[in-house]
Amino acid sequence: MPRVTIHRKAHFNAAHRLFNPAWSDEKNLEVFGKCSNPHYHGHNYELIVSVTGEIDPVTGFVMDLSVLRKLIQSEIEEAFDHKNLNVEVADFKTVNPTVENISVVIYNKLRTKIRTSLDISVKLYETPRNFATYSG
Amino acid sequence: MPRVTIHRKAHFNAAHRLFNPAWSDEKNLEVFGKCSNPHYHGHNYELIVSVTGEIDPVTGFVMDLSVLRKLIQSEIEEAFDHKNLNVEVADFKTVNPTVENISVVIYNKLRTKIRTSLDISVKLYETPRNFATYSG
Amino acid sequence: MPRVTIHRKAHFNAAHRLFNPAWSDEKNLEVFGKCSNPHYHGHNYELIVSVTGEIDPVTGFVMDLSVLRKLIQSEIEEAFDHKNLNVEVADFKTVNPTVENISVVIYNKLRTKIRTSLDISVKLYETPRNFATYSG
Amino acid sequence: MPRVTIHRKAHFNAAHRLFNPAWSDEKNLEVFGKCSNPHYHGHNYELIVSVTGEIDPVTGFVMDLSVLRKLIQSEIEEAFDHKNLNVEVADFKTVNPTVENISVVIYNKLRTKIRTSLDISVKLYETPRNFATYSG
Amino acid sequence: MPRVTIHRKAHFNAAHRLFNPAWSDEKNLEVFGKCSNPHYHGHNYELIVSVTGEIDPVTGFVMDLSVLRKLIQSEIEEAFDHKNLNVEVADFKTVNPTVENISVVIYNKLRTKIRTSLDISVKLYETPRNFATYSG
Amino acid sequence: MPRVTIHRKAHFNAAHRLFNPAWSDEKNLEVFGKCSNPHYHGHNYELIVSVTGEIDPVTGFVMDLSVLRKLIQSEIEEAFDHKNLNVEVADFKTVNPTVENISVVIYNKLRTKIRTSLDISVKLYETPRNFATYSG
Repeated sequence: MPRVTIHRKAHFNAAHRLFNPAWSDEKNLEVFGKCSNPHYHGHNYELIVSVTGEIDPVTGFVMDLSVLRKLIQSEIEEAFDHKNLNVEVADFKTVNPTVENISVVIYNKLRTKIRTSLDISVKLYETPRNFATYSG
Repeated sequence: MPRVTIHRKAHFNAAHRLFNPAWSDEKNLEVFGKCSNPHYHGHNYELIVSVTGEIDPVTGFVMDLSVLRKLIQSEIEEAFDHKNLNVEVADFKTVNPTVENISVVIYNKLRTKIRTSLDISVKLYETPRNFATYSG
Repeated sequence: MPRVTIHRKAHFNAAHRLFNPAWSDEKNLEVFGKCSNPHYHGHNYELIVSVTGEIDPVTGFVMDLSVLRKLIQSEIEEAFDHKNLNVEVADFKTVNPTVENISVVIYNKLRTKIRTSLDISVKLYETPRNFATYSG
Repeated sequence: MPRVTIHRKAHFNAAHRLFNPAWSDEKNLEVFGKCSNPHYHGHNYELIVSVTGEIDPVTGFVMDLSVLRKLIQSEIEEAFDHKNLNVEVADFKTVNPTVENISVVIYNKLRTKIRTSLDISVKLYETPRNFATYSG
Repeated sequence: MPRVTIHRKAHFNAAHRLFNPAWSDEKNLEVFGKCSNPHYHGHNYELIVSVTGEIDPVTGFVMDLSVLRKLIQSEIEEAFDHKNLNVEVADFKTVNPTVENISVVIYNKLRTKIRTSLDISVKLYETPRNFATYSG
Repeated sequence: MPRVTIHRKAHFNAAHRLFNPAWSDEKNLEVFGKCSNPHYHGHNYELIVSVTGEIDPVTGFVMDLSVLRKLIQSEIEEAFDHKNLNVEVADFKTVNPTVENISVVIYNKLRTKIRTSLDISVKLYETPRNFATYSG
């Protein structure tokens, strides 16, 4: 059967700051600029999850997009939406919530929930101009 | 010469339903939900066709985008636009018109019309949130 | 208090055809072209509902956008999404489902549910290039 | 001379929470839901400022869009971008930063800087689905 | 019958420069900056034409969107697309092609072709961030 | 460390024409059509630069997106924005400014400025419907 990639777009709104706890406030400000504001700022994150595999000849699906939608909702949106990533999301207690690191965390969360015969890729937009992709 | 990918975006509006004729109506409804509505629903499909090859040093083109535009128009838009995919498009008489399967059908139609030294990829948006990619 | 307009974007996918039952099939085809295909075609309708009124000084809201979201969901999306507008939606039994007429039907449905001190406007995209606005 | 409206799009990223200090935390949570999260969340705000007036026959401008761009930058983006609206922006010390109230604050800030023969309107997107318009 | 606005989106690509022939090159550069480059620069102009009137109860149309599409094509796109506005379009021989003035020229061209019982409005995007609206 | 791709979107407005100096005007018109207009036309070019590499565990960055933004600004936007590509940009004195060739030129300019342990890819939109990708 043909090997096809399906994509599902989702989104969440969150506050964050870029911050390395091993550094002084001055050093954080020097490296991360206004992104390091200790009072936080925030984004409308747009997320595209891509899943690649063979089409099931019975359903015509690589994976039911409705199942993928619900999986993103329960694993990512409920965990991140309307949250302060630094303060409220355990994954970022010791990991700086850059768009790169958030992409890796999302990939790892989904990787455990989707069967390994399917490849995964994550694209995360922090803004329409800044985004990242991670494929494991 | 450098190997570059050119992309052309096109679109068509069509009605469809997800349906496996081997199943009862109840089973179709159970698996495909409201997408299996026997009265059909529809989409504004957005299509991106990508063609990869070496730049022709005389024209600066991988392939004339205007030729690609007309090819998509004659092979895909005229065949699918303002049609009921299940009822009026022969390719879906026995193939369920999921976004995955429509992508494969579009790829196969274009593959026969574009010389084999050029690679093709098809991205098809069923909605802005659900889409698929197929590269043969 | 300042008079502000809030806007909420929603969407639904539906099949339809343009059709005047007083006319022959030939006349329908002549006037409506491929939009009159008897097997239907479809669209991803994008809907923006705008509500204008004074800001409530206690909440800072003209109207809770979350209430507006649920109202659009229950009154419009549940009625129209994944439906065949001509066949399954009573409002279009005798009304041609042009983008103009669908906008008026949506406006009228919402008008009865939103208090009259608030003005309403409806913008409906049939495609990204064809859309309509109705404000009563 | 013809009376024309020019529009300039800008953006800023900020953290905020919806909060009425006269209420208990429970009441805030009941009315504002997850938007009241005490740890804040955030948005990529997209802003469109519209200015209406007669075309100057010498320049062909209603107002130099480059001047409008710099005005939005100095008055709005520098004040709001990468800030926590509740904590760091004086305008929201006693005003709940709903999309309605932020629109009014932006309008008022710009109104004092643009000559009164020109009309102003402000459209503010909190998300692509939730937005507000204020025209004084 | 309800009074509804229909909108049609179109586009054209053109070169232009901002230029007042009564001024020296230095004065043009001082006022218009890089937009006055004597070798020209260019844009993908996006155009939205809006037409307001009563719905025809027989067709359900304010105006056939397909007729409007063809009218924009013949009157605007054929005149402006892939042209140098300053050099090749007579309307801008003595009129500076600012986004404001182009909007007025488009409005005037269409106004003579659409019956006067219908109101017209023109929105023209020079870039996604700079645009203008003219309604006569 | 995980290998991630970061993406930065930028833009520039420019005039150009497609032209092969070895050909007659008639031959240029025959091959390139209205894109060969000797008075030029223009575009709002949208550019996405992608950089792939390992995340730096200290910053959480593959490459500081702010550094990438400034690099695109100094190397590409300042060289191309509000310019006539054929006349004013040395790279296109003998290279036809097709979207394919502009992508290669942008890639080559950036390749010398970004360390070789990082992979680069360039996506360039000439219009929302015509675009190209080059990855070296």
